[in-house]
Formats: sequence, C-alpha cells, structure tokens
Amino acid sequence: MDPRIREHAEVIATHSVDLQPGDNVVVDAHPVAEDLVVALHEVIGDIGANPITVSQRTGKRAQRAYLRAAEPEFDTPSHELALIEETDVYIAIRGSDNVTQTSDVDPETTAAYSQAHQPILEERLSTRWCLTQFPAPANAQLAEMSTEGYENFVWDAVNKDWEAQRAHQQHMVEIMDGADEIRITSGETTDVRMSISGNPTINDHGEHNLPGGEVFTAPQPDSVEGEVLFDMPLYHQGREITDVYLEFEDGEVLTHSAGKNEDLLTEVLNTDDGARRLGELGIGMNRDIDHFTYNMLFDEKMGDTVHMAVGRAYDDTVGEGNEQNQSAVHVDMIVDMSENSRIEVDGEVVQQDGTFVFEQ
Amino acid sequence: MDPRIREHAEVIATHSVDLQPGDNVVVDAHPVAEDLVVALHEVIGDIGANPITVSQRTGKRAQRAYLRAAEPEFDTPSHELALIEETDVYIAIRGSDNVTQTSDVDPETTAAYSQAHQPILEERLSTRWCLTQFPAPANAQLAEMSTEGYENFVWDAVNKDWEAQRAHQQHMVEIMDGADEIRITSGETTDVRMSISGNPTINDHGEHNLPGGEVFTAPQPDSVEGEVLFDMPLYHQGREITDVYLEFEDGEVLTHSAGKNEDLLTEVLNTDDGARRLGELGIGMNRDIDHFTYNMLFDEKMGDTVHMAVGRAYDDTVGEGNEQNQSAVHVDMIVDMSENSRIEVDGEVVQQDGTFVFEQ
Repeated sequence: MDPRIREHAEVIATHSVDLQPGDNVVVDAHPVAEDLVVALHEVIGDIGANPITVSQRTGKRAQRAYLRAAEPEFDTPSHELALIEETDVYIAIRGSDNVTQTSDVDPETTAAYSQAHQPILEERLSTRWCLTQFPAPANAQLAEMSTEGYENFVWDAVNKDWEAQRAHQQHMVEIMDGADEIRITSGETTDVRMSISGNPTINDHGEHNLPGGEVFTAPQPDSVEGEVLFDMPLYHQGREITDVYLEFEDGEVLTHSAGKNEDLLTEVLNTDDGARRLGELGIGMNRDIDHFTYNMLFDEKMGDTVHMAVGRAYDDTVGEGNEQNQSAVHVDMIVDMSENSRIEVDGEVVQQDGTFVFEQ
Repeated sequence: MDPRIREHAEVIATHSVDLQPGDNVVVDAHPVAEDLVVALHEVIGDIGANPITVSQRTGKRAQRAYLRAAEPEFDTPSHELALIEETDVYIAIRGSDNVTQTSDVDPETTAAYSQAHQPILEERLSTRWCLTQFPAPANAQLAEMSTEGYENFVWDAVNKDWEAQRAHQQHMVEIMDGADEIRITSGETTDVRMSISGNPTINDHGEHNLPGGEVFTAPQPDSVEGEVLFDMPLYHQGREITDVYLEFEDGEVLTHSAGKNEDLLTEVLNTDDGARRLGELGIGMNRDIDHFTYNMLFDEKMGDTVHMAVGRAYDDTVGEGNEQNQSAVHVDMIVDMSENSRIEVDGEVVQQDGTFVFEQ
C-alpha cells in the first residue's frame, strides 16, 4: 500500500478527529476507497476504538437504485439515527467509481430524502466528524487529471503541516472576528454585502474538512443584499451547475438563474425556507491547492476564492443570541477572486485580486 | 445485470424476510456482492423500506487490519448495538474476494471480538434476518468450480419453489416433533445419542438461510453422549479444519481433536462454557444441493448429511422450560451420512445411508 495512504489515515485519526480509545467510529466510504478504509482500521485498532463501515453517501449504484425505485416520501430511518446518536467520530470518505452516478435520479426524490435525513445530518454534525477524499480514478477524471497526478495532488494537500496553515489563517480570523459588514465585489456582476456581526469566524485547518484551508462564518440570515455571479461550476447530485446567479433582498434569494441545469438549482432553493438564504461565507486560504478540480472540498480552499453556501449554518459559526439559518441542504458555490475583485471588511480592503493584505 | 440476481433479491425480500413498508433494513455485504446489493435496493425502494448498507462481517481486508492491530480486549460497541436494536430486517450476504482473508488473525483476538459482539448477535437474531450467498469468484474457487458453474449452482439453489421444499421437509418435522431420543451412527467412529425432548423442530425452507433446506432443533444441553467424527471439512475464520472428532459426556466435550488446525478448534471450544456443548442438530434435506462446496450454508442442507453445532442454541428451537445453551459462538460441523449410516428417532430408523424412509 502507498505509504501516503497510511499517513492520510493517521492525519485523520490524530489531527482531524482526535481519536481516543473506546470511541465509537463510523467510516462511510465507497469500495474504491478500500485502501484508505483498511489503513484507517489499522489506526483505529492501534488506538483501541470501535469501527463500523457503512456505505450511505450518494454516488453509489445502490443508493441510485433505491432512490429511483422509491416514492418521494421518506421517514427518518430510526436505525440509522440510533447509530449516529451513539457515534463519537464520523469519517466520510469521498471517492466514487462514477461521479455522475446519481445524475438520473429525480431531484425531487433526492430533496425529499435529504429532508427526511436531516435529523441524521444534525447528529453527524454533533460528532467529531471529518470529510476527506480518496483519489479514485473517476475523481481524477472529473479533475481532468491523470490518476497518478491526482493522487499526488490529493496527498500533497492532505499530508501537510497543519499547524503552519493554522497560523497563516489566524491573520484573517483576527480581521473578521468582531467585524460587522463584509462586502465582496468581483467583475461587473458580483457586489454583495452581509453582516457577520456577533458570529465567530472559524479557522479550518484540516479538522472537519481534510484538506482544510479556509476561514468561514455565517452571515446574519436577513442581512444579505446584492447580487453574486458564482463563476466557478459546481457538481450537485452528479450534475454540473454553471454560472449560478443569485440576487438577494433582505437575505432571501429574489431571483436566480444558471447557465446549465438551472432546474436543479431551483430544486435546491425550493427545498425549504432556509435553502433560499445563506448559511455560510468562506474565504479560501490554502495556497497548496493551486488549481480547480471541480470538487468543492478542494476548490473552496483555494487562496483566491470566496464561497457562499445556501442552506444550513454550522452551529459553531452562530454567536449566542444570533439567528441560525436552518435547512435540509448546505450547497456551496464559488466566486473566483483572482482578478478585478475585492474583499472589504467594515470598509477596509483586506484582499485585492486574490492577494491578502497580510501576504504583501 | 443477470436477471437471476434481481430474482434472488425478490426471494430474499418477499419470501425470506417478508419485507414491509417502513421496515428498517440493514444490508451487510462485501463489495464483490454489489450487484445483489443494488438489486436489493431496488426492491427495498419499491416496497418503501429504509436501507443502510454496512460492511461488518469477517472476510474483509479492513476487518483483518483492525483485528491484527487491536489488543484482544473489546467492549460491545454501543453504536452498532443501537443500530441493530432499531433494525427490523437484517440481510447478511456472504461473498468475498478471498475466503482466507482472516487466516492470519490471532484466534484469541477473534474470540474476544466475538464475545464482545455477542449482544449484537443476539439483537440480529431477534430481527427478521436472512443469511445468503453471492457467487463471487473467490467462493467459486473454494468450491473448486468455475465462476459461471458456481453462479448456476447458487442461483439454482436459491431461486426455487420453496413451498414444495417446505412440504417435503414437513415429513421429517412430524417425525421429530414430540420425539425424545435421536441416535446418529456413521462408519466405525460416529455413534452419538441426545435428547430433543420438548424442543421444537424447525422447518427451514429458505427464511433465515437462503438457500434453506434442513430441519433442525436443539439438543438438551446435558443429554449428549457418545462420539462423532465430522468427516466433512469446515472453514472457520478463513482456515480449514478437517476431521473434527468430539467425544461427549453429560453433554460436554470431553476430548477433541482435528486433522488440520486443531488449535483453531481448541480456541472455539474454549470461547466459553457453552462452546463445549451442542446448540443445534440439523438434518440436511435439499436434494438440489448435489455436491459439497466447502460452504456451510450449502453443505449442511445436502440431503444425505447431518450437522451439529457447538455453541449457542437458537431461541425458537428451545421449548418452554427447557435449558437454552448460551455461547458467543455457533460453529456447525457436518457428518456425511451417504454410506454405512443411520438416523434413529426413539429407536426407529428414519434414514439409512442417506435415504429417508418417506422417500422410499
């Protein structure tokens, strides 16, 4: 086995989720990630924790078959909920043999399924969870890279000095913490303002996301005003959505459009009330991720991007007494900030054309 | 997909576990069985039940890695227990890419793991459970058959008229129900008597085991007297045990030996007190399984065999007020009854050299 896989497993266990003896662990993975699952089981055995491997995330043939056969009405499965309620550590491994596997599932069915599984998602988010990537050939193909080139890209991004990354990002946390208004402008179309007043900014240095490399917080749900063109594409439910355009008034999406698969964007926004409001603003800060790979886990960490998510706000990004946006979905979308772009915090420019003031 | 796989999934769902809308289902499978898992998910979606796929049974690389890394001390994992407590239907699919995958795991570790997982096993046995087989290449190799030949063998045995099989077996149930002493003799060595007084005989027509094809009950734990040479080999924890010889006194194994891997047999018998007593007596009655394939799920159903298991007795084979043998293990072993052999029930011969009296 490639020694970088064992290293990946050790970063997950010791850095990301701080695995302890006796922890109940769920590993959620596709069979293509078997090598990483095996390496994780070695580490879990070494530490003396209790693993169970499940295969629940989308991108599986079985999940597609189930969703296509089912009526779009679901209950929350109490057995899956009970499992997660007793779980200390949840490790989700992305990686599939076909990233468009669920492209022919009715979005309405998927939305209903997500809605019914929301209590399970809530429980997962209350564990010491980690989302990471295995560099499977299908994921390399999505990134338009050779499999070996993509393996190098993923393991370089994952197996790194996370303490140095944390220190770099702390500059931006200190700028945003305690600030009120963020304004983001890019090109002709994007000009959006929002309040983050009272909401903590989180330093993501490879804990919940591996790779990490961003700082993020939650906007006040009613405060978002303006328009954004998300000029980087995203994959959702196995389909590509391009050029998402959202116009906000009083925090809510007033109008929306997309270049490709606009119907899927509409489904997302119609999931529930919270799906029409922002739940996250993130600033990418990982200079080791040097190009787009059409994979949000990496793309949103790039040093000259910002991203916003419609839907659920993470608990730890909402200050006491502030409103938390609730939703069954959390869908991230990216703005390229490398040219003709600015981030302003309370009227001061902190990033210009992708370069932070503290990097100059 | 081979249409026999979809048929297999339908037999499991409609015949074996009587799947109902809203049932919480666990599918436990190795990735080699993906086609059957996909077909099952279609059926589960059609019916409106809730699936989760796990990968927990031995035979997996991850399980081996975990057990080799771990100390032989385990707690019962409360998350896995909670999952099964909320589960209505548990479907375990045998099938692996290497049937000897766990052959280099310390038997002591495996025994300790089994012991800690006993409460989970108990819960599984209280669901509407089914154990079946996917005809993977490694399993074909174990059977010394081509993959296609083995596929035909498995699907012929599984996709059949289970009502006709049930009626055939009911003759033997009627002979055994209400009987007291069973005596089994074979060749020079095997001559064993036991009481089944008050214990119901179960007609296995493809419900908990698919394929089914046996009738079985529990001996009174203290009643077994005599000696048995199990002349058919068995695979346990990825290793072959041959020519198991057991001598019983007052129900307990007094002496034991094996031709190959006797140490593994010793480990099994030393698991706990119940592992030294019989928990099952079964009579194979499935004439469609016409040769040994070194796979207990099939071999024990052959029409001219009997099998006995050391360890746990199934709940439904123990009559009210009778003692139930308790153990963390349940290990089946087979006696070939095709030559120089007899089954006697209360002194009457009911099978001679593999042929039942009601078949003559």
